[in-house]
Amino acid sequence: MATRLFRILDAFSSERSALTLSAISRHSGLALTTTHRLVGELASWGALERDSQGKYRIGLRMYELAALAPRGPVLREVAMPFLGDLYEATHQNVQLGVLDGLEVVFVERLSGREAVRVVSRVGGRLPLHATGVGLILLAHAEHAVQEAVLDAPLKRFTSKTIATPQQLRRVLAEVRRNGFVISDGQIELSNLSVAAPVHDETDTVAAALSVVVPSRGADPRALIPAVRAAARGISRALGSPRALALPASARREAASRAAPPSRTREESLGDAE
Amino acid sequence: MATRLFRILDAFSSERSALTLSAISRHSGLALTTTHRLVGELASWGALERDSQGKYRIGLRMYELAALAPRGPVLREVAMPFLGDLYEATHQNVQLGVLDGLEVVFVERLSGREAVRVVSRVGGRLPLHATGVGLILLAHAEHAVQEAVLDAPLKRFTSKTIATPQQLRRVLAEVRRNGFVISDGQIELSNLSVAAPVHDETDTVAAALSVVVPSRGADPRALIPAVRAAARGISRALGSPRALALPASARREAASRAAPPSRTREESLGDAE
Repeated sequence: MATRLFRILDAFSSERSALTLSAISRHSGLALTTTHRLVGELASWGALERDSQGKYRIGLRMYELAALAPRGPVLREVAMPFLGDLYEATHQNVQLGVLDGLEVVFVERLSGREAVRVVSRVGGRLPLHATGVGLILLAHAEHAVQEAVLDAPLKRFTSKTIATPQQLRRVLAEVRRNGFVISDGQIELSNLSVAAPVHDETDTVAAALSVVVPSRGADPRALIPAVRAAARGISRALGSPRALALPASARREAASRAAPPSRTREESLGDAE
Repeated sequence: MATRLFRILDAFSSERSALTLSAISRHSGLALTTTHRLVGELASWGALERDSQGKYRIGLRMYELAALAPRGPVLREVAMPFLGDLYEATHQNVQLGVLDGLEVVFVERLSGREAVRVVSRVGGRLPLHATGVGLILLAHAEHAVQEAVLDAPLKRFTSKTIATPQQLRRVLAEVRRNGFVISDGQIELSNLSVAAPVHDETDTVAAALSVVVPSRGADPRALIPAVRAAARGISRALGSPRALALPASARREAASRAAPPSRTREESLGDAE
């Protein structure tokens, strides 16, 4: 019975966010009468709402409950001022993702009016190997997660998407060494992202932060210090001992606003570490 | 049976976001064995997750589904660049709320590092009469909603909270006449908000936008043009005929970035309407 309710909710997706009763019945594989009864119960609780065309959509009650998910909105709230700094510095896409299963789920994205279009959306998922945030999360994931991703086919989005386990292993080792990653044209050839890890109070990598910018004319290395400073700021706010124990110069950097990136700044940060 | 699942989910709230099995049983009023079985089903679907202390929390699957709610994240996505402009102009709290029942539900909030503390949070609720966004939504709500709020006791948060139906009726009439509201010290004496309505493609008021700033030293009138310009920008992006039909000068204003507020700007906007 619980399963049947879940099947009804599972009928909704970003491509199918408004459904008629018969579409819900078809996608959930439940009889129309059962669907009718269960949709009624979900609607009266607030999990579903009816729109002006009479179609069903996910209701605000789900939004309210989802706001209690610790890895979503709670993390988002702590991260917001740092995301805001990066947004102001770049006016591009700033996103925060967490690991769920073998994918990254985006829990926040700030986008400027003129920002490059990205396929990710809040609440959406993408494969780990093909995104900057995903590579950060995968590099620090449990061994079993890494092996599962390395064993499965690596979905190819563009000619630049990481395509072999060997290549992926090499990139993951680099990520662990560097503390950041530049993911260039992996999902769309025209975009690149710069990502860095966010550590929680146990110094576990709890999330990853990235800025997505147009590849053309971008100097990704110039973005690295701002992205790392923002990631460190969030880690400190989460109580990460590692972020709190940074040398004083880097702490000042992490505590101050992430300024528009510049070569000088990058070099001075590099020196501090 | 559906009801029992909902009771389990209803046990979670912002004050009780991590619960043991026995706490869920207690708050939902269900027997421990039933709770155990249903929590298991909810957890295997992803609606609940277990944290490192073994307590249950709302899971990411809820977050994913909630991201499909049209009045939540979809609205938020359209509004984001305009919220970003207001955030940059003020570095305070910028929030977007929608009407649900007799309350406002906040669907987004951007907050600066130095922003004044606010009680609202994303996914949280507040009464309509006591908040700027709530007064906007109530002023344009169906008659039945207005009467229900006017008939019920008006919860008092501070000495400045609207306390009588007469006072509330007067404020609502002003809101409809002015197209904005200044809510001063109603929830916390030290804060004020400036709010304006967001119209959708049928020119219905679909949401309200506000900036919350410290009362001390604030010149709320100086914020009005920026808040209204952002609200109009979102309305135009939603296809509001009314916002699209604005005089050319006001459309330029709405289309341009909401600049830091100034007297001059406010007057010139006033002239355009």
